Amino acid sequence: MDRSNSVNRREAHTTNGTKKTQEELLVQEEEQEVLSVERIFESKQVPSWQSQLTLRAFFVSLILGILFTFIVMKLNLTTGIIPSLNVSAGLLGFFFVKTWTKFLDKSGILKQPFTRQENTVIQTCVVATSGIAYSGGFGSYVFGMSEVVAKQSTEANAADNVKNPSLGWMITFLFVVSFLGLFSVVPLRKIMIIDFKLIYPSGTATAHLINSFHTPQGAKLAKKQVNALKKFFTFSFLWGFFQWFFTGGDGCGFGSFPTFGLKAFENRFYFDFSATYVGVGMICPYLINVSLLVGGILSWGIMWPLIEDRKGHWYPADQSPSSLHGIQGYRVFIAISIILGDGLYNFIKVLGRTLYGIYCQFREKKAGSVLPVGARASPAEASLSYDDQIRTELFLKDQIPTWVAIVGYVSIAIISTITLPHIFHQLKWYYIVVIYIFAPVLAFCNAYGCGLTDWSLASTYGKLAIFTIGAWAGASHGGVLAGLAACGVMMNIVSTASDLTQDFKTGYMTLASPRSMFISQIIGTAMGCVISPCVFWLFYKAFHDLGVPGSEYPAPYAIVYRNMSILGVEGFSALPKNCLTLCYIFFIGAIAINALRDALGKNKAKYIPLPMAMAIPFYLGSYFAIDMCLGSLILFIWTKINKAKANAFGPAVASGLICGDGIWTLPSSILALSGVNPPICMKFLSRKDNIRVDKFMKP
Amino acid sequence: MDRSNSVNRREAHTTNGTKKTQEELLVQEEEQEVLSVERIFESKQVPSWQSQLTLRAFFVSLILGILFTFIVMKLNLTTGIIPSLNVSAGLLGFFFVKTWTKFLDKSGILKQPFTRQENTVIQTCVVATSGIAYSGGFGSYVFGMSEVVAKQSTEANAADNVKNPSLGWMITFLFVVSFLGLFSVVPLRKIMIIDFKLIYPSGTATAHLINSFHTPQGAKLAKKQVNALKKFFTFSFLWGFFQWFFTGGDGCGFGSFPTFGLKAFENRFYFDFSATYVGVGMICPYLINVSLLVGGILSWGIMWPLIEDRKGHWYPADQSPSSLHGIQGYRVFIAISIILGDGLYNFIKVLGRTLYGIYCQFREKKAGSVLPVGARASPAEASLSYDDQIRTELFLKDQIPTWVAIVGYVSIAIISTITLPHIFHQLKWYYIVVIYIFAPVLAFCNAYGCGLTDWSLASTYGKLAIFTIGAWAGASHGGVLAGLAACGVMMNIVSTASDLTQDFKTGYMTLASPRSMFISQIIGTAMGCVISPCVFWLFYKAFHDLGVPGSEYPAPYAIVYRNMSILGVEGFSALPKNCLTLCYIFFIGAIAINALRDALGKNKAKYIPLPMAMAIPFYLGSYFAIDMCLGSLILFIWTKINKAKANAFGPAVASGLICGDGIWTLPSSILALSGVNPPICMKFLSRKDNIRVDKFMKP
Repeated sequence: MDRSNSVNRREAHTTNGTKKTQEELLVQEEEQEVLSVERIFESKQVPSWQSQLTLRAFFVSLILGILFTFIVMKLNLTTGIIPSLNVSAGLLGFFFVKTWTKFLDKSGILKQPFTRQENTVIQTCVVATSGIAYSGGFGSYVFGMSEVVAKQSTEANAADNVKNPSLGWMITFLFVVSFLGLFSVVPLRKIMIIDFKLIYPSGTATAHLINSFHTPQGAKLAKKQVNALKKFFTFSFLWGFFQWFFTGGDGCGFGSFPTFGLKAFENRFYFDFSATYVGVGMICPYLINVSLLVGGILSWGIMWPLIEDRKGHWYPADQSPSSLHGIQGYRVFIAISIILGDGLYNFIKVLGRTLYGIYCQFREKKAGSVLPVGARASPAEASLSYDDQIRTELFLKDQIPTWVAIVGYVSIAIISTITLPHIFHQLKWYYIVVIYIFAPVLAFCNAYGCGLTDWSLASTYGKLAIFTIGAWAGASHGGVLAGLAACGVMMNIVSTASDLTQDFKTGYMTLASPRSMFISQIIGTAMGCVISPCVFWLFYKAFHDLGVPGSEYPAPYAIVYRNMSILGVEGFSALPKNCLTLCYIFFIGAIAINALRDALGKNKAKYIPLPMAMAIPFYLGSYFAIDMCLGSLILFIWTKINKAKANAFGPAVASGLICGDGIWTLPSSILALSGVNPPICMKFLSRKDNIRVDKFMKP
Repeated sequence: MDRSNSVNRREAHTTNGTKKTQEELLVQEEEQEVLSVERIFESKQVPSWQSQLTLRAFFVSLILGILFTFIVMKLNLTTGIIPSLNVSAGLLGFFFVKTWTKFLDKSGILKQPFTRQENTVIQTCVVATSGIAYSGGFGSYVFGMSEVVAKQSTEANAADNVKNPSLGWMITFLFVVSFLGLFSVVPLRKIMIIDFKLIYPSGTATAHLINSFHTPQGAKLAKKQVNALKKFFTFSFLWGFFQWFFTGGDGCGFGSFPTFGLKAFENRFYFDFSATYVGVGMICPYLINVSLLVGGILSWGIMWPLIEDRKGHWYPADQSPSSLHGIQGYRVFIAISIILGDGLYNFIKVLGRTLYGIYCQFREKKAGSVLPVGARASPAEASLSYDDQIRTELFLKDQIPTWVAIVGYVSIAIISTITLPHIFHQLKWYYIVVIYIFAPVLAFCNAYGCGLTDWSLASTYGKLAIFTIGAWAGASHGGVLAGLAACGVMMNIVSTASDLTQDFKTGYMTLASPRSMFISQIIGTAMGCVISPCVFWLFYKAFHDLGVPGSEYPAPYAIVYRNMSILGVEGFSALPKNCLTLCYIFFIGAIAINALRDALGKNKAKYIPLPMAMAIPFYLGSYFAIDMCLGSLILFIWTKINKAKANAFGPAVASGLICGDGIWTLPSSILALSGVNPPICMKFLSRKDNIRVDKFMKP
């Protein structure tokens, strides 16, 4: 349907004759003048994939990987909120190697110049390494198995449901589960990057950054873009720095600013002054930002307040707001339903089209296979920009054969299925087989959603595993531990899948070979599987009150995950009233909206929100959607005022905003690690509370 | 010294020959193209001064005067902080009359079109009326005399030191003291406006606003300027509106934002996000803004902390920070010393030059007297822009003879000297004579300082009167009441003096006749002398807990003024240790710096701060200086990027910022009057306090 549409339009263009074509040519030329990055890089040769993988790159990656693992581990164990570190990795990698090559160049012994492809390899490797620190679950499921955390809960304290951390089993566990994600998305990378043209805002921003670093001298526009990037990078960094001072406590600082009033803040409608998400909003298409906002309004503006009115009827009134037996249950499970519905629809559709495409190719025996364009695909090939042409060519040059991916996935799955029950005897081999059958679907869903919105939902899929496997095993058979272990298996797969696809996008835009990216990710993951448990072990041994509430390292998510698992073993029947019904409705709704979008065709579909994007604020609230809409609004106004400038500098500004805030996480983490806390709390109190506090402070 | 300097430079120009002149012409033409407002207004005839004073203008003024008096009175009795209302008066006056004349024009019965001069007359009249609400001291010295306030203090409660408000004596009092200020600055207006070219930021902003309203159609740049003004007006207004929501309590909101940390905030170094003062900073010269900052650093950064270290030695350790026996004494009295030193130096210098100039004129018998250019004067006449030429011509056309000013001042002083002791028997006639001898000097100082920095120090001069007259009368002879009454006499003179000069600046820039301004101010003052006491009487009768701490109308300054007066009767000996010595040093220092500035000549003098500007943060802290420096910085960067644009749009942007925030005070006051309080308090707590508060809020 979509395809014939685009064909029709192309025909219409042709009938308009020569004049149109000339105009088109002019526009194209102008666009190239303004936009083409690859023209600027034309003079620079792209090294072969083997020479993109240098020893120095992996040496730098190792050092940065250790550094970042420390940071992520610390964040795991303090707040549990981990920002994307792609940008920091790209930037620091550049500075390390650049200084090194400059030094060698001056000494006259430089053999190989530093290229942007090598930079991308470093970035990919570091992200893979530090990614394990997150998906390894040291702040969540792994630590949730420990005795320290188990003692905090009244239920399921039996030895059967407890497993204390130990270096040996943690490293083995990571090695057998972390590589599956990589193999599961490799066959899909072309669909994600080239056919769907998914955005991957962080990946795009990182690519812009890396490109800007390596821009050859003399490119005027590029220099201007780099200047814009630098300006907004500095602003964003300083803004992050400034904000930090006012976050000396929970609910303090600009991140908790009740921009639209306290009532709206309670329903998570506020602008949180995050430069990152304003930048992400500038990179994402309008439709996604609007979908996010629509989802936020639908859920937090309408549904949750209505459900909360039924408190005491639909769910017990005495539940805490974060209990999955209460309102949080509706939020989490409805969001999961929509994500699953949308993901499933698209997976089946893409699979169908892929198979059909292959069938066609075989029949027509054409060389240079071109897969059909996906539902949310970009304009047809004819309108591909010079950049996209070059990038697509390079991206398709170094193939990773599909059989490698399949063989790799299956063999690791077999090893894993044999090994895992030896680590967790509660996790039966058939649970693992089931997980490995469904995992590729979920990995696809996550990589796809992340590409749309920059939000990796790995932990959500992990929770799904907790509930299903936990319920299956049952409380009496160590279901709590089985659930947590299953969560680990699932999280590792879907998290690495989205990370790798994000990196493929960066590689696509920096002309790095997918093959070198893949190898870099494998090496990075292997490093992470050793480094992360060691760093955790250090924390575990150094701080004896690790995981104790109120201590310096409370590891808040450890107890949360354990509690979810305890809930899970009771099965879906433990869900609050009508929750399952609502889940079915939204699951079907997501599929229906997708079908509607495809039925209407591209022109009308752009007015219908994307279910995947709508689902995320169901769970998290609208604050980041508001940031992103502001980014959209800025870009929209800018485009109205000066379209050429907005097109040329929009991505640079957005990348600057994302990168500056991203890099700030580094010093802020170091400050936190060294025990330097923000001195001030910017607090927001209602008038009434303020009077009480004032009386308390100055009696 | 200065004069010969400028002559030398002019000669140097001439010797450079024709090329230089051509360049100059080009520059001049370009400047006129960009800057000249009067060229745009060339087609519009300036009405005679009599026809600038219309009946409709005074009718509108009366209505607005009543409105503004309500607002100021409310602010008097709640916080005591009164913003400048010039801009609001100009804007609302325009809308009222414009609507009226548009209506008449459509009906075909419009006799006289609405001109910017008439607009200025309205603005002047409204400011004069509402000014009395402030300088009338209904929230400070007058109410400080009452029994309600007297009972709150343990000392000086005798009947001799108490006088309850009553409509009769208040109106009489205002009538005999409020007109003196007007007459005292009339002879000095030319020196202030034309020779010194003082800035009067509020006056300038109001003039820009009024000019922009009346810009004839078709002036392209003016339209752009108006657009810039509108844009920043809207931004500033919305920003004020947004800020309001977060000010639900003392020390809440952006106005108390510890931008540079809590320690710096304690020493009043912070950016308070005031659009008004950022705008003011954009209008004021760099030197003034830097002087303010230097003064702030010298006093709050160095001196006060050093003096506070001597707590217990230099002043009693148990004094509250706001007690004049303690650190506050140093702040107030050193600031006063500098202001007096600078003011005195300039007054004597100007007087000397004026007399010398007159002497020269008589000797050379020249027609068209041109006074010598003052110390901080602008470039010589040769480089006067077209705007300045036209404006100076008009400003000097309608003279107010000096004898009118002198006769007016002396005769009102005589009436006042006879009448006042009948109202306050504690205030002897010879006290009043002394005040009236020194008042013109202080009126000059205040008008001069206000012209430099937009900060009227009327209340500071009032405090000076409290101390001197109070000490002179002594506690036993009702010195407390005498001090407060003297404060009233002094404040009315210096406050109206600065207001009128501010208005003269507006008039100068809108080609309003000084004569019509003067008459408008007299009528406005007369209206104020009746309206203000009546409005206060209304509050006094309507709210029975007026002046009671913790009530809706605590009138905080009433008790402050009374306490100062109680301190004053004990004489200067009651000042903390070394305070008087420091005062002498700074008094002499201010004179010395001024002398140095004059001795060095203009080129080098621009690197030496102005003592008058330095003094203000001594008392208030640096927060507004930081706002103003930010304004300077913005303008500086803008000028570096695009000088022509910065020159053309800088004042419009600044005016927009000042006006938007100014107009916001109107709805915010109305909200306060109708009892609508801001819902949220944005509070800033130290990390430690925050932990305590969190424990208190969620036990």
